[in-house]
Amino acid sequence: MTETLTIRNGIDVDQLLATIEAIKDDPAVGTFTFRASSRWEEGTYNLGEIGRFIHAGQEDQTRGEAFQLEGDEPPVLLGRNKGPNAVELLLQALGFCYAVGYVANAAARGIELTAMEYELESDLDVRSFLGLDGPRAGFTEIRAKGWVSSPNATKEQLVELCQYVQDTSPVRDSLANPVSVTTTLEVR
Amino acid sequence: MTETLTIRNGIDVDQLLATIEAIKDDPAVGTFTFRASSRWEEGTYNLGEIGRFIHAGQEDQTRGEAFQLEGDEPPVLLGRNKGPNAVELLLQALGFCYAVGYVANAAARGIELTAMEYELESDLDVRSFLGLDGPRAGFTEIRAKGWVSSPNATKEQLVELCQYVQDTSPVRDSLANPVSVTTTLEVR
Repeated sequence: MTETLTIRNGIDVDQLLATIEAIKDDPAVGTFTFRASSRWEEGTYNLGEIGRFIHAGQEDQTRGEAFQLEGDEPPVLLGRNKGPNAVELLLQALGFCYAVGYVANAAARGIELTAMEYELESDLDVRSFLGLDGPRAGFTEIRAKGWVSSPNATKEQLVELCQYVQDTSPVRDSLANPVSVTTTLEVR
Repeated sequence: MTETLTIRNGIDVDQLLATIEAIKDDPAVGTFTFRASSRWEEGTYNLGEIGRFIHAGQEDQTRGEAFQLEGDEPPVLLGRNKGPNAVELLLQALGFCYAVGYVANAAARGIELTAMEYELESDLDVRSFLGLDGPRAGFTEIRAKGWVSSPNATKEQLVELCQYVQDTSPVRDSLANPVSVTTTLEVR
């Protein structure tokens, strides 16, 4: 027996289709619990770690060392520019999410990609953060722009896929629609 | 004249108070436009950049090279673990945001901190992302837990501050309440 491995855009399409079938058979295969942690260092500077996650009720074992991230603010927001700030990370997450959604769905549809980029920007008024009367504490608007090149898809197909990706993007959905956030504090 | 510089928790409290006064005088001083960009490399792997931002209508000049980030998925989500994934970055952003809000407001209130950590986790069901019937595409719930130590504040003060930080956190607000997200695609 010969097995044909279909890799498109660097995506293993056979694995993608097998994953979808596995989740159809057992929805638990589609459930994840992701995690991150951070430790305050000084001022606005924090060290972050992203390690293992739970998939289908069990801890995934494929990651060795946790990913390390640095968070800080620019001087105008009391920091020293040792890392991006929290809201910038949020924008970066949206770009990464769009890209993954686009490349995976393109692969499944037989669309080859040769290039893809995203630029994201958002407006923030820090008055509420600083305890002053002002607009909402969070982003008042996010604007995302993508560029994509494909040798075998029409413009219409690529634009339609962009809409599909928006409708199914975990990060976009988490920003565009309310998420329940429960926060507790323990004093040591 | 002697100038007394008040640094608490690594936060320049004088600068913080001066910033608040400056924004009271001219609300434009409180306005920012943050940015991020990303370039697709292969499969689920993307390179991100976070560079300069707009403050009060002008580009802030304090950052030299842009911060570089890597985004990827674990093998079970078709990637190679070359970086955290998009939804994990979202959690990291929430932890960083809580920490900055907590440390800055503690400094303004005269509360000294000796340690602060956050752990964040969230549940995600990838069925919608994969085009199957299922719950929402985004996080179904985010759980955040903080630990804080202070030599000069009561437990009640620290817990109250945690609530204040939640109420004024830009990232929490962007997740807990809907944000307008506008996305356009250009085909090259």
